[in-house]
Amino acid sequence: MSDAFFDAHRSVLEQAVAAIRHRTYHSAYPEVPSGKVYGEDARAEGQKAFEARLGATLDLKQGGDGDGTVGRERSPYGIELNVSYPKPDLERMVARAGEAAAGWRSASREARAGVCLEILRRLNRRSFELAFAVMHTTGQGFMMAFQAGGPHAQDRGLEAVAYAWDEMGRTPERATWTKRVGRDETVTLEKTYRIVPRGIGLVIACSTFPTWNSYPAIFADLATGNACIVKPHPGAILPLAITVEIAREVLAEAGFDPDVIQLAADEPDAPIARDLATRPQIGIVDYTGGNEFGRWLGEHARQAVLFTEQAGVNSIILDSLDDMRAVSGNLAFTLSLYSGQMCTTTQNVFIPKDGITVGGERMSFDDAAGAIVKAVDWLLGDPKRGAEILGAVQNEATAARVEEAKAAGGEVLREPAPVENEHFPNARVVSPLILRTDASRRDLYARECFGPIAYVVATESTDQSIELAAGLAREQGAITCGLYSTDPDVIAKAEEATALAGVPLSVNLTGGIYVNQAAAFSDFHVSGGNPAGNATLCDGAYVSGRFRVVQSRIPVPATEPAAAGA
Amino acid sequence: MSDAFFDAHRSVLEQAVAAIRHRTYHSAYPEVPSGKVYGEDARAEGQKAFEARLGATLDLKQGGDGDGTVGRERSPYGIELNVSYPKPDLERMVARAGEAAAGWRSASREARAGVCLEILRRLNRRSFELAFAVMHTTGQGFMMAFQAGGPHAQDRGLEAVAYAWDEMGRTPERATWTKRVGRDETVTLEKTYRIVPRGIGLVIACSTFPTWNSYPAIFADLATGNACIVKPHPGAILPLAITVEIAREVLAEAGFDPDVIQLAADEPDAPIARDLATRPQIGIVDYTGGNEFGRWLGEHARQAVLFTEQAGVNSIILDSLDDMRAVSGNLAFTLSLYSGQMCTTTQNVFIPKDGITVGGERMSFDDAAGAIVKAVDWLLGDPKRGAEILGAVQNEATAARVEEAKAAGGEVLREPAPVENEHFPNARVVSPLILRTDASRRDLYARECFGPIAYVVATESTDQSIELAAGLAREQGAITCGLYSTDPDVIAKAEEATALAGVPLSVNLTGGIYVNQAAAFSDFHVSGGNPAGNATLCDGAYVSGRFRVVQSRIPVPATEPAAAGA
Repeated sequence: MSDAFFDAHRSVLEQAVAAIRHRTYHSAYPEVPSGKVYGEDARAEGQKAFEARLGATLDLKQGGDGDGTVGRERSPYGIELNVSYPKPDLERMVARAGEAAAGWRSASREARAGVCLEILRRLNRRSFELAFAVMHTTGQGFMMAFQAGGPHAQDRGLEAVAYAWDEMGRTPERATWTKRVGRDETVTLEKTYRIVPRGIGLVIACSTFPTWNSYPAIFADLATGNACIVKPHPGAILPLAITVEIAREVLAEAGFDPDVIQLAADEPDAPIARDLATRPQIGIVDYTGGNEFGRWLGEHARQAVLFTEQAGVNSIILDSLDDMRAVSGNLAFTLSLYSGQMCTTTQNVFIPKDGITVGGERMSFDDAAGAIVKAVDWLLGDPKRGAEILGAVQNEATAARVEEAKAAGGEVLREPAPVENEHFPNARVVSPLILRTDASRRDLYARECFGPIAYVVATESTDQSIELAAGLAREQGAITCGLYSTDPDVIAKAEEATALAGVPLSVNLTGGIYVNQAAAFSDFHVSGGNPAGNATLCDGAYVSGRFRVVQSRIPVPATEPAAAGA
Repeated sequence: MSDAFFDAHRSVLEQAVAAIRHRTYHSAYPEVPSGKVYGEDARAEGQKAFEARLGATLDLKQGGDGDGTVGRERSPYGIELNVSYPKPDLERMVARAGEAAAGWRSASREARAGVCLEILRRLNRRSFELAFAVMHTTGQGFMMAFQAGGPHAQDRGLEAVAYAWDEMGRTPERATWTKRVGRDETVTLEKTYRIVPRGIGLVIACSTFPTWNSYPAIFADLATGNACIVKPHPGAILPLAITVEIAREVLAEAGFDPDVIQLAADEPDAPIARDLATRPQIGIVDYTGGNEFGRWLGEHARQAVLFTEQAGVNSIILDSLDDMRAVSGNLAFTLSLYSGQMCTTTQNVFIPKDGITVGGERMSFDDAAGAIVKAVDWLLGDPKRGAEILGAVQNEATAARVEEAKAAGGEVLREPAPVENEHFPNARVVSPLILRTDASRRDLYARECFGPIAYVVATESTDQSIELAAGLAREQGAITCGLYSTDPDVIAKAEEATALAGVPLSVNLTGGIYVNQAAAFSDFHVSGGNPAGNATLCDGAYVSGRFRVVQSRIPVPATEPAAAGA
């Protein structure tokens, strides 16, 4: 049964393994929410499936379920959700995970990969249902919820399976070792190399990208033979509950204990992450979220290998460019998309106070800043387009932060005026607040202001802009950095500075590619080289610590060539 | 110049890369201290070179040298050493390392690998000098000092270069990424992937295997572009000082700043490891030594990636066997070699209280224990052979521990009688103390007793023996485990239990292969899966965290196929 899954999906895996080696464009799951791809009724059926979840209990029938239910998600679009989930009994859940792990770790790599790939295939078929679940928990617009929450997340999960597969394959399962120990004497040992998983992986997800940011961890854990406990953010449980439900189905069909994966849902006033993360049976913790809890995990979850994806202060550097309209349009989309709630969203736009070169002419700082503001206004001026791009603000704290930032200082270049959402009149919509300040006001721009808040910062020069962007990345962390320059020396200098600060650089992006997007199989998301996280989605280090290779060796007496002479 | 080194040694690297994939027997540096291999005068010249070091200052001319010298090594063989070394100025040393790292990290992977391979080649040619240095600091017998301190350590260094090379090669340096974004429109990005080293690696070495245990770290750091500060144990500086001297020569010849590698020597009463390890510029710490300081590093050197190789409680399980003479002879060598001062030496021999099966017959516990004692007596009965196998005890504390263990309890089966060393009458020689106890006396055998101390422990059954061996590995750590059994079910059970406890299993070793030996390119030394260490010599995880891949991407405008239709 389980080998059938592997056989069915073998080419998907092989193509993914080739993709991570070449890092050219690759995708296994179509990103277009088109009826031609997913079936003409797929969207309607997905919506119906999502609506059927509302007001109901999602019963996962887990071994680790305790008494009662939890669930206090609220849609940022203002609709009623009222979904409840089994309340975990942590002691029992961890015990069940340990028991279920025994059969899972003993399975062949092929069997485990096959199960992972089948889970991904079924998740892909359920992309519309997942899209609505992502949309109404995170506040993402529908298109983004479909793409980032569905196929892109699935691609990231597949990428992790490919890395895990590749990593496990670097050591053979067996080797025959023959050493000459004398003139006519050899010793031969038969060696066996076992993949021994850490045990139980805990995946602590975030409220903004519940699937995209956690699928790599979930699939890396599963592919390397670990059981997995998924602890969703209390504000975005549903997408991961559906994911776990599908995964458990596939595990059971393949003859495994479905408690290999379990959902541990909680509520904001009774959080369980600390308790779970520090249990001795938890061998791996993956965490996406704020830096404070990340630090806490580093200090307290010492028994586990820890992978973090946190937050940072992302920058764009304007130096010189050909076409301000193309650039400002690109930046406007970056600043507006999902109301700036991406860990990759630009916060600071550094522009020399004496202006920049545009198409060979001088453009003043004010005109450059004004062009960006104008582009945002234009982009969001069409309410339908604006509402889709902005989505809704996931939580109250983010909305409040916009007001706090406005009060803190800096000249307001653009008010965070709400944009009406015709479908969801109660949606929490805030458009980008754009403030102007100068390089001396580090108190304003040199800290993370998560949400639709951007500073246009006047610097002494592009050199200072590069220093500030790289310095912030080193000190506060950063996940993206953008540069607009027509000068190869400036580009080279920025590449060197940002590389050393562990932040990837995107140069001169215009059109349909944005600094805040990272493509699976090609772009490394987070470098692990600055405080924005210690891990990368995905690389070898992301998977190699999830298991150990433990060997045994035994002499092979039969093949002693010295026998004849003895 | 630096590419010339790479070209010269390319095939050495390629063979090493093939070896780690196949894990069959491989060695690049001959282990036999033979005149035919190393030159007829090599031994005499090596001895002369070593003797020329005595009573002198080894001046490395490092940028990080401060005022004055340090050095209080004492030969366990009782000869006068009186070697002194530059006293480091830590502030300056770290600063110089940072400056030197700039040119090193910018060099090509080939240039760095070439330098590493040339260093290894020169170390190999100096194996006799290194052997005397290792012998007279660690107390190893000459043959062991030559093999483990020379060629085997060099092989382990090469293995690390091979893993680093392989790991860096998993991501291409460049990729062209083209995505279709519309019916007739594509976007093409040129992506560059840079290897960005962590910065400065600190290697904290031990007193018993100064080269074997630190070469993997030194070469992994260097190959991945990090500068390296080598902090030897104050009792075993000379082998690493010679190593650093050779490495600096090669770096300078290849046009690099020799401060890419520096020696930071200290004395027992003024240790510097804590100060160095917690400096913010230190990105990697490799540590070999006791568990207590390892824990301290984990708690305090939080800015760095930490790789540890610590200690544990190693076991042998006797169940059933064919030939007690072959087995007891093998165990006697294991217990005696280097006076039990290997991190891989067996401490506990578990034997069922009702005895074992030997050649189909019952052998009582007492007879089995007696056979081991007799084999040790026989092995060490020839003083010349005994002195060579035992070597000398590295430090007073280890010698004292033997007396403490004797006083602590258990029935003395074998007294730790000294063996006379005809060449070095003042050598600190202690032969194995063998104690008998039973499974209930965990206070005796369930803690690490480093040195020539072994317990023969009476258990209820082989099942209990396996449980105890695996349990100790999980709780206290273990690096080796041996099993003697003719029963495939027992072997399978022990394999499963020890694998889950993260300890490699050696089954039915007799003849010239011992449980405490680990072969480069084939055996994984330490699993990283129990408290005996968090790292393996070597695997992907050992190298992948030493650098990050940071990318940049820039559109390629020229190849837009939509141009014709626009």
